[in-house]
Amino acid sequence: MMEHKGFTLWFTGLSGSGKSTLADLVAETLNKKNFRVERLDGDEVRQHLTRDLGFSREDREENVRRISFVAKLLTRNGVVVITSFISPYQEMRKDAREEIGSESFVEVFVKCPLDVCKKRDVKGLYKKAINGEIENFTGVSHPYEVPENPEIIVETDKMTPKECAGGIINELYHLGFL
Amino acid sequence: MMEHKGFTLWFTGLSGSGKSTLADLVAETLNKKNFRVERLDGDEVRQHLTRDLGFSREDREENVRRISFVAKLLTRNGVVVITSFISPYQEMRKDAREEIGSESFVEVFVKCPLDVCKKRDVKGLYKKAINGEIENFTGVSHPYEVPENPEIIVETDKMTPKECAGGIINELYHLGFL
Repeated sequence: MMEHKGFTLWFTGLSGSGKSTLADLVAETLNKKNFRVERLDGDEVRQHLTRDLGFSREDREENVRRISFVAKLLTRNGVVVITSFISPYQEMRKDAREEIGSESFVEVFVKCPLDVCKKRDVKGLYKKAINGEIENFTGVSHPYEVPENPEIIVETDKMTPKECAGGIINELYHLGFL
Repeated sequence: MMEHKGFTLWFTGLSGSGKSTLADLVAETLNKKNFRVERLDGDEVRQHLTRDLGFSREDREENVRRISFVAKLLTRNGVVVITSFISPYQEMRKDAREEIGSESFVEVFVKCPLDVCKKRDVKGLYKKAINGEIENFTGVSHPYEVPENPEIIVETDKMTPKECAGGIINELYHLGFL
């Protein structure tokens, strides 16, 4: 392992935009470069940290609060933390940035039109949400506030996952994190 | 910072036994030796990770579950994690050991007779518990299960905090963690 500065790559975007796919690809690349990497994704976090929480605004905020705390601890100990959560509100992402430390926080907006996400519907969740089987679903019955000033933007309806991941790595070099 | 293997030092014992004092002293020593150290203590964890939880058996278990998850992430990234929670049940400590990994888990039993803890009563909690102002208080209205096989035992009614902390560091060398 290499001794290096930690930072948090915070992926945000609609369900189906490609956050987890890109986060996995970037994690793989950084692992190969011998960085210490920790992926925090929905399933593992939900099982260990937030299984009491649902999808109301309050619960989403508490969810992001716990993740931010864990990301902060790892980041200040030299780990590259890669999170992939919808994190739909501007304010919760601002809170995460403040908790983790602005100089160690890289917001990646995974941009993809809602229509494209709905068509992809990899997990069949949009269909369920539209049929009213899931409450508080972002993009259907819950808002998604587009990031105003993310460090990185990738457009997954225009480029392949590999191209997007390559773009993120490239930006991380430019930003001085790699 | 030094590149080293992570492990978790899990302090357990009654309220007033001296867990936090010893944990702080050991953290200080390891910091001076250039280890990456992360202290997880009640107040910080309660604020960021577990503010929904009380002191019932179920809540204490969930508390330890979340802490164990965070300790696991830090430990496998080369951090020395030092926790100080009463963690009164054998089974929850066993679960923590399994989650974090037995080879990286050092249970420190901070042994002190209940009478001595009650007399110390640094935070005035025993008095409140005896008067019925606090429910589920370990040692008063809640059991404490003595560790059966802790890696380290210190007796805080017989030795000074500095002697106990020195003993713990010494044991960590013997156990091959330092």
